[in-house]
Amino acid sequence: MFELGILIKNILEIYPADKAEVLKDQYLIIEDKKIKKIASMESCPSEKEFSEQIDAEGKILLPGLINTHTHSAMTLMRGYADDMPLQKWLQNKIWPFEAKLSEDDIYWGTALGVLEMLKSGTTAFADMYFAMDRAAEVVAKSGIRAVLAEGLIEANDGEEGLENSLNFALEYNNTAEGRITTMLAPHAPYTCSRAYLAKITELAADNNLAVHIHLSETKAEVEDFINKHSVSPIKFLDEFNFFENHILAAHVVHLEPGDLKILKNDNVNIAHNPVSNAKLGSGIAPIIDYLAADINVSLGTDGVSSNNNLDLITEARMAAYLQKVNNYDPSLIDTQQLLKMLTINGAQTLNLSQTGMIKEGKKADLILIDTQSNSFSYPHHNNLSNLFYAADSRVVDTVIIDGKIIVEAGEIKTLDQEKIYYEAEKRAKRIADKLK
Amino acid sequence: MFELGILIKNILEIYPADKAEVLKDQYLIIEDKKIKKIASMESCPSEKEFSEQIDAEGKILLPGLINTHTHSAMTLMRGYADDMPLQKWLQNKIWPFEAKLSEDDIYWGTALGVLEMLKSGTTAFADMYFAMDRAAEVVAKSGIRAVLAEGLIEANDGEEGLENSLNFALEYNNTAEGRITTMLAPHAPYTCSRAYLAKITELAADNNLAVHIHLSETKAEVEDFINKHSVSPIKFLDEFNFFENHILAAHVVHLEPGDLKILKNDNVNIAHNPVSNAKLGSGIAPIIDYLAADINVSLGTDGVSSNNNLDLITEARMAAYLQKVNNYDPSLIDTQQLLKMLTINGAQTLNLSQTGMIKEGKKADLILIDTQSNSFSYPHHNNLSNLFYAADSRVVDTVIIDGKIIVEAGEIKTLDQEKIYYEAEKRAKRIADKLK
Ligand SMILES: [Zn+2]
Ligand SMILES: [Zn+2]
Repeated sequence: MFELGILIKNILEIYPADKAEVLKDQYLIIEDKKIKKIASMESCPSEKEFSEQIDAEGKILLPGLINTHTHSAMTLMRGYADDMPLQKWLQNKIWPFEAKLSEDDIYWGTALGVLEMLKSGTTAFADMYFAMDRAAEVVAKSGIRAVLAEGLIEANDGEEGLENSLNFALEYNNTAEGRITTMLAPHAPYTCSRAYLAKITELAADNNLAVHIHLSETKAEVEDFINKHSVSPIKFLDEFNFFENHILAAHVVHLEPGDLKILKNDNVNIAHNPVSNAKLGSGIAPIIDYLAADINVSLGTDGVSSNNNLDLITEARMAAYLQKVNNYDPSLIDTQQLLKMLTINGAQTLNLSQTGMIKEGKKADLILIDTQSNSFSYPHHNNLSNLFYAADSRVVDTVIIDGKIIVEAGEIKTLDQEKIYYEAEKRAKRIADKLK
Repeated sequence: MFELGILIKNILEIYPADKAEVLKDQYLIIEDKKIKKIASMESCPSEKEFSEQIDAEGKILLPGLINTHTHSAMTLMRGYADDMPLQKWLQNKIWPFEAKLSEDDIYWGTALGVLEMLKSGTTAFADMYFAMDRAAEVVAKSGIRAVLAEGLIEANDGEEGLENSLNFALEYNNTAEGRITTMLAPHAPYTCSRAYLAKITELAADNNLAVHIHLSETKAEVEDFINKHSVSPIKFLDEFNFFENHILAAHVVHLEPGDLKILKNDNVNIAHNPVSNAKLGSGIAPIIDYLAADINVSLGTDGVSSNNNLDLITEARMAAYLQKVNNYDPSLIDTQQLLKMLTINGAQTLNLSQTGMIKEGKKADLILIDTQSNSFSYPHHNNLSNLFYAADSRVVDTVIIDGKIIVEAGEIKTLDQEKIYYEAEKRAKRIADKLK
């Protein structure tokens, strides 16, 4: 009896994410892109019944990590500009660089980003940028799962851009064997008018699309908005039922009185980006309050230009540190909460409820972490603590997405790494040289 | 003419640390443990004149990183207890574990710590713990540079402990070919009386020893101290001229009015431990104010039980992030400042002024960073930014201390890594099992 499935055997520990329980000494069978069976090694079937098998001795199995807010192509700007005042950084560095990006640059920048994400254990991500059909090519080829949206700034994109972004969303939704889904993505309440946002709200509802938006990221932005509109950005959006669609709100750092209740009542999903918020001096989002109110909090890296990497392991670490230090309380946020934010909560944010946990019947988006890869893995009092508080992404050994092995022994199987390095380097340099 | 030196050729960039200038396409000669010559590759001498040569193509050269506050043996507690209220964590977890440490455990715990430090680019560290003669064995064997001190808690150690710690300091100072120097180390003002601290001050002055102490780490500790003594810990110490010796003060998170002036006037050297301060919820030290007042700020990891690693690259990243986010200003702390805190400033804190910069005549404590080791190294707009904001410690390729190659292509040459893993694991597990 040959089942054409994958057997992962000798799994040291499984962290299912939907419960705190740790399963020891297990095997797991993948069939038809799904987790078919999880059980103790005592009853492990013969390897011969499977087309592929993985010996996971010394490795722990987690759901794949989910990055709920990034702009992958911005990897081309890694290290291009740091430590500058925000407006100067945007106006003199980031926007001029972005203005020079060709569609091919977007392709290779996204490829560099996806390569980095895959090698650091990310199995799904949400991206808002432009030329997203080129990003979709990378997603299709790489084997990663993604939720893509064309970003809309009204002054630049207008009605035509909105139409194109809707066309993109409809054309690409559920493509790449179902690994690509799509959203609409107005950039932010301060870059889109009420009428424009209301129209997006309507189109999203009519076409059953979720909406990805930047929300209340900096104090200055929220203050300016209130000066102009007399209400907070969140209250403003609520007034025309913006939140009735499935919403992915990135940042949400600065709340006004009444905002929390709206986020809670309207089931807004938050992409918390602690590193970007710290590096840009935006502030520390009150995620303790969000979690206490049972608001869904997931984690994103934001673009590399403000991070400067796409590593969700250290992103989670930063999320914990910032809450602990900001509230003078070391007990806030534990490793189980970090795991949930990176997995189940991320799946909820991206409307991918068939992923984000290790459970029979769910999609096989899984990662194996090597618990013996480096000095910081020793001793082994607690493997999840070693992962989230001590390790770096070199511990990521195997990445499986939609039942397919994408990263094996730390090496990517679907992309040409050297070609991506070469192209990303050449294109980043070309633009930087032009802007000198 | 055979010079028995080391030639490092084709160095992509040298970051000297004592100036912001970056030297491109250089060679460097090491002779008699020192940097003998730095010059452009145009005038590179023949390899044949040297006993060893390193081709540093694609690599950048930095002064070795300096960890100015840690307790290395605490690596045995990595992941043993996290996310707990401070007092419960100390009383139920850390202190009982420490009480079970044998002198051999200290040896192997320190070995695991030193191994991790060397592999992540640290060439010198300051350690305050107990059984420091065993730590000294590890330092001697490993080739690292260290400033060691027996920690003193008056209630535990008393006069006898003080005498032992002085004997240790005198016996071990300037041993291991000069790589070990020593200090006296009263644990903190709240664990040692005025009389005890005054005696240490006198002994330090008489024996020309520097003093390593924890200072004003948590808000509660400072408040309790003021309730008891009516003055801040810093003012208290100043009253009996504690700061007249060379002082290494760890943490210094919470200042009272007048404290800053004392730190400045008495040239107190600060070991800033941003990750430990965040993870334990202690607070964010106002290092922007210290730097503005020209107070020497260096970086430490503290013990692994509150970090949970010994990686100075991510420690520096955290130092920058916390100042940026706490002051809503992304321009605070740049990569050159991070480099200085990790190198020259660290050397000043540890009284090791012959290290910490790349300059002819200085000691050859150097690290080579591979700028092509991973996805997060691309593109190459700015190698120092990629190191401090994007990379992890796997970029550390070569570590040279006192003119000797200790780490080569990421592998340790002086210690038996597998034996250290085995012993650390066994000993950590033995203690944890006993405490179950
Ligand atoms: Zn963003
Ligand atoms: Zn300490």
